[in-house]
Amino acid sequence: MAQRLILPKSGDYKVFRMEEFSPDKELKNNHIRVEVHYSGVNFADCLMRKGLYQDSPSYPFVPGYEISGIITEVGSNSRWKVGQRVMAGTYFGGYASEVIIPEDHAIELNSKYSLEQGASLIVSYLTSYMAFIEQGRAREGDQILIDCRTGSLGIMSSQILEKIGARVTGLTSSPNKKNSLQNMGKEILLHEELKDQKFDIILNSRGGISLKKDFKRLKPNGHLISIGISDALGKSFFKKWKTLLSMPWFWIVKLINENKKVSGLNLLRFFDYPDLLQKALQNFDRFDIDAPPLSVFKAREIGEAQEFIENRKSSGKVILSWRD
Amino acid sequence: MAQRLILPKSGDYKVFRMEEFSPDKELKNNHIRVEVHYSGVNFADCLMRKGLYQDSPSYPFVPGYEISGIITEVGSNSRWKVGQRVMAGTYFGGYASEVIIPEDHAIELNSKYSLEQGASLIVSYLTSYMAFIEQGRAREGDQILIDCRTGSLGIMSSQILEKIGARVTGLTSSPNKKNSLQNMGKEILLHEELKDQKFDIILNSRGGISLKKDFKRLKPNGHLISIGISDALGKSFFKKWKTLLSMPWFWIVKLINENKKVSGLNLLRFFDYPDLLQKALQNFDRFDIDAPPLSVFKAREIGEAQEFIENRKSSGKVILSWRD
Repeated sequence: MAQRLILPKSGDYKVFRMEEFSPDKELKNNHIRVEVHYSGVNFADCLMRKGLYQDSPSYPFVPGYEISGIITEVGSNSRWKVGQRVMAGTYFGGYASEVIIPEDHAIELNSKYSLEQGASLIVSYLTSYMAFIEQGRAREGDQILIDCRTGSLGIMSSQILEKIGARVTGLTSSPNKKNSLQNMGKEILLHEELKDQKFDIILNSRGGISLKKDFKRLKPNGHLISIGISDALGKSFFKKWKTLLSMPWFWIVKLINENKKVSGLNLLRFFDYPDLLQKALQNFDRFDIDAPPLSVFKAREIGEAQEFIENRKSSGKVILSWRD
Repeated sequence: MAQRLILPKSGDYKVFRMEEFSPDKELKNNHIRVEVHYSGVNFADCLMRKGLYQDSPSYPFVPGYEISGIITEVGSNSRWKVGQRVMAGTYFGGYASEVIIPEDHAIELNSKYSLEQGASLIVSYLTSYMAFIEQGRAREGDQILIDCRTGSLGIMSSQILEKIGARVTGLTSSPNKKNSLQNMGKEILLHEELKDQKFDIILNSRGGISLKKDFKRLKPNGHLISIGISDALGKSFFKKWKTLLSMPWFWIVKLINENKKVSGLNLLRFFDYPDLLQKALQNFDRFDIDAPPLSVFKAREIGEAQEFIENRKSSGKVILSWRD
């Protein structure tokens, strides 16, 4: 028997239920069975638990976008072998001790990474890659602003951008996190310290009216990328909806007049475009990424793990362990 | 004495007035005096004459965004020499037999081009460059749609994009123009022949509701660039305003959900960013551009020249001659 974490309905940290289940015995062509060692916990998972995520499946379901583990069985025609260490994106269902996935959603974990680290890379890598390589088409010399610099997405994006030769300015709300990044030689500011500097690309994870402020910070030909609405989280019901409703509209005439560019990113939708996903995954090793700092929770501590994220205590990535 | 074409107020083709004037005797630092041989006539000039162009100076004024000619005097500290053949962007005032301009707005006309051709390149080059190189960041393999393929902008953009290795599909409303481009081996369709193909970058010059249709034709991570509202031209007063008012608003949440990008381009605003303009001009020779077909009118035939453009009779560029 395997185990999985069910989200039965929206609710607080305690709403998750651990249950046993029997995975399918049959493997389809080009699918692999993975013994999951670690599952990544993402910000979107918290939104889902709160019923704030439009792309949620209907309740009950098993959340989870990414896992690491070891292949225990391969479908016919598969290029994989039993025993290989992989990390993989899961289109939900990653909070489980065993998964069956299309083989193209996995990449082999190179020897640089532990299995723990393997559960921390895929979602933030794919998001960074889609945002800055495919959507932003970042170039050497670009000046980039990232408003979630100390989270796993910000850490990942900064690495990718530095490889390209772009220059990243990060924002954080924590003086401690600011100090520690500054000590590593990184450009990092508290939100309120950002003056009238202009940027080529701005990654906005907060949503709401912060998007309008960031729009004003674009250089000509600059690009504002919206990737979520973290400002809607952890606030009163009223403020939550206020943030959602304050997601701005942009008039094309204003974009023309200011020579500016806006876009948005929803990583899930790329599961409909296997070629794009595949291209992104194939490029992973090119960036020689260092894994972020990890906070490891036992799988049954999912509530604590999400609380940890929502209280913005984490620097780096939160993962769940299934084998302890 | 020199001559220039005054636009005294908005009006029909006959509204222009040719007048004599005395150019300033003094040249400021880093300015050059150019004996103008040809002036380019652009679509935006027609919009201005009709009072449809928000960036018009107040009447009366001298329109004209680009000229070619020969330097007759250089200001102190100038890197230019008397006698050099140049083409230049003019921030209005190009419809004149003599201009004084900042030296950085000019580039030397290389021997590949005649003076006639020199008046046909700058505006469409700068627009193409800003749209596809700086704003679109076009790449090898991109699939591009251009809705004004047979005009000077479409011809210029296609050349630049082919140099990069992108693949251009053009649109036209003229079966004749379609045939002639097809005979040259180009991908060209009538508007109504465009089916459900998807694109990485779409250049939309028509504005209005055509922008919403083009938005649907974007691939994930695709980019819609709006450069004008040609659909507003040559229609009844009612339809004109309907087109302007139908310029769409894009909700950032829709951009997120569809992983799409929208932007707009107003070339004039780049005159506020000399570094960007300068970078664009310095890159001109890199693309080894062929000049478009020309239709040459005498300067005093400005009315006929604009009528020719508005009736969409031109393939390529319309220029005015000052020396015949």
